[in-house]
Amino acid sequence: MKKITVLGSTGSIGTQTLDVISRHPEDFEVVGLAAGNNISLLLEQVRTFKPKWVSAGTEALADQIKSQVPSQVRVVYGEAGLIEIAGNSGADYVVCALVGSLGLTSTLAAIEAGANIGLANKETLVTAGHLVMQRAKDKGVSIVPVDSEHSAIFQCLNGESHKTIKRLMLTASGGSFRDLTRDQLNNVTVEDALKHPNWSMGAKVTIDSATMANKGLEVIEARWLFDLDYDQIDVVIHPESIIHSMVEFVDTSVMAQLGNPDMRVPIQYALTYPERKPSPASALDLLKQGTLHFREMDFNRYPCLRLAYEAGRSGGTATTVFNAANEIAVARFLKREIPFLAIDRIIEEVLSRHTKIAAPDLETILETDGWARLEAAALE
Amino acid sequence: MKKITVLGSTGSIGTQTLDVISRHPEDFEVVGLAAGNNISLLLEQVRTFKPKWVSAGTEALADQIKSQVPSQVRVVYGEAGLIEIAGNSGADYVVCALVGSLGLTSTLAAIEAGANIGLANKETLVTAGHLVMQRAKDKGVSIVPVDSEHSAIFQCLNGESHKTIKRLMLTASGGSFRDLTRDQLNNVTVEDALKHPNWSMGAKVTIDSATMANKGLEVIEARWLFDLDYDQIDVVIHPESIIHSMVEFVDTSVMAQLGNPDMRVPIQYALTYPERKPSPASALDLLKQGTLHFREMDFNRYPCLRLAYEAGRSGGTATTVFNAANEIAVARFLKREIPFLAIDRIIEEVLSRHTKIAAPDLETILETDGWARLEAAALE
Repeated sequence: MKKITVLGSTGSIGTQTLDVISRHPEDFEVVGLAAGNNISLLLEQVRTFKPKWVSAGTEALADQIKSQVPSQVRVVYGEAGLIEIAGNSGADYVVCALVGSLGLTSTLAAIEAGANIGLANKETLVTAGHLVMQRAKDKGVSIVPVDSEHSAIFQCLNGESHKTIKRLMLTASGGSFRDLTRDQLNNVTVEDALKHPNWSMGAKVTIDSATMANKGLEVIEARWLFDLDYDQIDVVIHPESIIHSMVEFVDTSVMAQLGNPDMRVPIQYALTYPERKPSPASALDLLKQGTLHFREMDFNRYPCLRLAYEAGRSGGTATTVFNAANEIAVARFLKREIPFLAIDRIIEEVLSRHTKIAAPDLETILETDGWARLEAAALE
Repeated sequence: MKKITVLGSTGSIGTQTLDVISRHPEDFEVVGLAAGNNISLLLEQVRTFKPKWVSAGTEALADQIKSQVPSQVRVVYGEAGLIEIAGNSGADYVVCALVGSLGLTSTLAAIEAGANIGLANKETLVTAGHLVMQRAKDKGVSIVPVDSEHSAIFQCLNGESHKTIKRLMLTASGGSFRDLTRDQLNNVTVEDALKHPNWSMGAKVTIDSATMANKGLEVIEARWLFDLDYDQIDVVIHPESIIHSMVEFVDTSVMAQLGNPDMRVPIQYALTYPERKPSPASALDLLKQGTLHFREMDFNRYPCLRLAYEAGRSGGTATTVFNAANEIAVARFLKREIPFLAIDRIIEEVLSRHTKIAAPDLETILETDGWARLEAAALE
């Protein structure tokens, strides 16, 4: 029986994680649930899963929860609450499904507590991959990816030796605007951007998918998760999102993981690894699918991906800046403050203003993150 | 250093096996080479690899070899020679690349000697899967598939638990005549049939590919290699032969192995498993490939595959009959004695005349094999 704490339980990944857990009550016990402001859903989850620890976004929300749960339930709040529930809820497995750079400190707290990590928060490795992977290694903790692409690679590497990896091929659907030229992107709306062709995801990641910043974050994350050079990580456009990613080995064999786009599959694999359990996802029907397409990534069409590679190769604080600037730019686009094409412009401008610090510590990362956010918020 | 004996060293798989071995002299030592009548190539291989044992098709050929090799080299011949070299050449790994049912007794001899087996001979498992797999299990011997489809499945199963397999999807190119209707097959020639669209292989297997008997043999072989029911083994037409086969697991994840069609890759994997080594094969370029297609298998278009499933489900000696009748029918087609469409007719007729014996011993299998050959040779 795995004792699980879910950070970000009311989000897209969080709710699907609880869906998976509820289908395998013999395997999993929820000991902690952390969410932000969606208090009614959090309370519903608390009633269903009866965790010993609960964390909410604010003190007021925490008080609201306290009034509705048994007194022995520990209720905490805010970033300090996230760190506390991540480290002290008694979980041997923590699913980090927080969106944005909030995930970093709580993931580190869970690692310090010796819990294995199901990592859905890209920013943790993007901003502090060197620190997080080193601490995980020191503590003997597994970082199991939840993201469909990294889960695919993780599955392809099952039983394989690291030194025989030649390269990864991350697949990218192309996002909501893949059939538009760059000129046509000038006037796209938030509503257009939120219509992802294959995956049903949260707003931030759907926009990141349209700009390809998402794939950029995945490239950086893959560099840390799988300990590879950027030259060993390629991105290929695969509009159907059926092959979730691939690994080419030194003998030219390519291993791929395929399936219908359903996040419950990689989420469940992260929870049950190295086992597999039956899933409610629909089985892939390749005969119905008929055709799979592949085409070359266009870095001019998707400057965010180019910027991610550049930041990754630059290293140090550059990826923190990439991520923070992107996070603010996307938030501003979603608030209709800036047009779609301003997103990559803002990231590039903030990166150009930044003086990179190599091998930053956590404090430097957080300072850089804050600086980049202010810069990105001020730009037009 | 693996000590390797290659049975069938002058054939398509045998020569490619030696090509692979010659690229990794630090890993492999050839201790035995067995061939049939291609004596000049066998002698050339003997000079290059300096095996301690050599086997030829006949006594006369063996005498010819003896006169040209150092006196300490053991030279044997015929089926008895194959059995002797398989069991006594001191190999810890025997590649069984003989074509046809000749492979069975020598593979069993190698298993008895405790050698791991690189199995390229389909008929061994098709005719005696129940005996061979049981002996391999008793002796603690690995049967590693060399065939590209089974190698793909073997690679997909790396690190996975057998009980989580939902089904296999063997891919089939469709063979030389995939774009012809059944009516158009009436007048096809041997030359037409030998033009395989993707793979360069021996004549027998190229014809088997055109009739889909090859895929039928693979289905039966997969049933034994991977210990599955026939209901768990599907065949899908995939004209490009890029995905070499797939495994669907209970969680709906599908793992696939991809690559350019180059037999040196699965051959090498069988030799280096569980490791991988660099290969001279060209890397897969999915961007150049662009598109992968999948379509449903048509059992009316390919009666040999239907007959293989029927024989497999019937079990016992039925698969021996399928294989023997096919072997004779293909030989007769290659000798221009019968038209292409007589191949499946002959197999079906011989199967219909056969009274199945369940769980046959080796003697019964060989008797049945002989009977089926005579029947198939006499039919019009």
